[in-house]
Amino acid sequence: MLLLGSSSLSPKISKAHRIDNYTGLPAISGMELAERLKAHLDEVGVEITDKQVGAVYAMGDYFALQCGEEMLEANSVIVATGVVQTKALDGEDKFLGRGVSYCATCDARLYKGKNVAVLGYSTDSAEEALFLSEIVDSVLYFPMNDNLPDERNNINVIREIIGENSVTALKTDSGEYDVSCVFVLRDAVMPDKLIPGVETDGAHIKVDINMKTNISGLFACGDVAGKPYQYIKAAGQGNIAALSAIGYLNEIKKEV
Amino acid sequence: MLLLGSSSLSPKISKAHRIDNYTGLPAISGMELAERLKAHLDEVGVEITDKQVGAVYAMGDYFALQCGEEMLEANSVIVATGVVQTKALDGEDKFLGRGVSYCATCDARLYKGKNVAVLGYSTDSAEEALFLSEIVDSVLYFPMNDNLPDERNNINVIREIIGENSVTALKTDSGEYDVSCVFVLRDAVMPDKLIPGVETDGAHIKVDINMKTNISGLFACGDVAGKPYQYIKAAGQGNIAALSAIGYLNEIKKEV
Repeated sequence: MLLLGSSSLSPKISKAHRIDNYTGLPAISGMELAERLKAHLDEVGVEITDKQVGAVYAMGDYFALQCGEEMLEANSVIVATGVVQTKALDGEDKFLGRGVSYCATCDARLYKGKNVAVLGYSTDSAEEALFLSEIVDSVLYFPMNDNLPDERNNINVIREIIGENSVTALKTDSGEYDVSCVFVLRDAVMPDKLIPGVETDGAHIKVDINMKTNISGLFACGDVAGKPYQYIKAAGQGNIAALSAIGYLNEIKKEV
Repeated sequence: MLLLGSSSLSPKISKAHRIDNYTGLPAISGMELAERLKAHLDEVGVEITDKQVGAVYAMGDYFALQCGEEMLEANSVIVATGVVQTKALDGEDKFLGRGVSYCATCDARLYKGKNVAVLGYSTDSAEEALFLSEIVDSVLYFPMNDNLPDERNNINVIREIIGENSVTALKTDSGEYDVSCVFVLRDAVMPDKLIPGVETDGAHIKVDINMKTNISGLFACGDVAGKPYQYIKAAGQGNIAALSAIGYLNEIKKEV
């Protein structure tokens, strides 16, 4: 069993001032709940493997997880990435794989000697930008943690990826920059981009009551499995997903 | 908002020696978890109304809840009864409403001057038997909290309800007793008997991912909504059901 994620506390939960509806832990601060969840992991001896998964490929009887240059294998996968709140940038979908990348460690080598841009939404974006800077010619780093919505009444924030066959430039409100790739580094990518072939409904993975997805052996839970976005709901669905995954593993064991 | 149930701690949870997978509360005893849940209710100011609901009738635009001789009304109902583990007795389904009853306070008057039997599975069965004894001629009380399964290898426990048009006798391993009614007092009754018209799958109410049932305004969560039977799963589904009910209430408010 591998728990892939970030071992640092989630900034989202830590910022929650007071959570009233985590059943059993009334009026708890987000920080305290996060610490309690971490303590529970420690208690049962589950370690967090601090790797970012760039893609999950369903290979039929197993899954291949791309983590940077490393490939991990698993018989069953539970997706609990949370949900992408930001909408796609203009040109993001169009140029994905042709100058738009979600993973610096995966794709840096493709842009050796080139100029690239990094849109740093996620907490470890700066680190990824540093990694990129060792390989590519130059990195334009845009910190995106300004919490500015993409559209507001009187502010026109321009973030557009432009090109023809592949990306040629990033257009922002501060000007147009010639780059060969725009690295869009969010904490989570859209699930259908993370897991090719998974059935989604907008930003959510479609699950049944047992947290099964359309892909055999792949389960989803928490925000990525749909609303409401609530901690106790995520915990409950996590429990179901874990038990469903165990059931699935027992099932395939029998077949072998 | 009314929370109908028993204000005494659930014997099922209190007996759990140690619960390891209630996320955020590692290695907690059932007793402590039960007390924490009760404390959370107190914290948010929700009182438990200690009434047993005998039936829930969907009346189209509202629900009628039969509590003994009282009828309560509600715009939306969340069913969180837990699940009936015992299978129906021989004759139980056949004679339901014709000499089989699940509610002493509801049906006692029908058996004035008659002999009745009480199968006391639930914690407050004895109390109900006392109530019955004031109205009917005689009560045969069978305490069922022996935890004996209905069938075991070498013990043949006979519990059969017999009759023709209506109940005439209860047959047990200790003999046959002439009674006009058998009161089967479990902590929970089968959901399709509690809520006529609700779609079920065996002992479970069928729900979608938002905890909606086939009846508009009726939601279900926890064990009654299906496996796995886990506390954290029940808590998570409770959260979803509550938010779905709020959404439903807002919806019908708009229509009025």
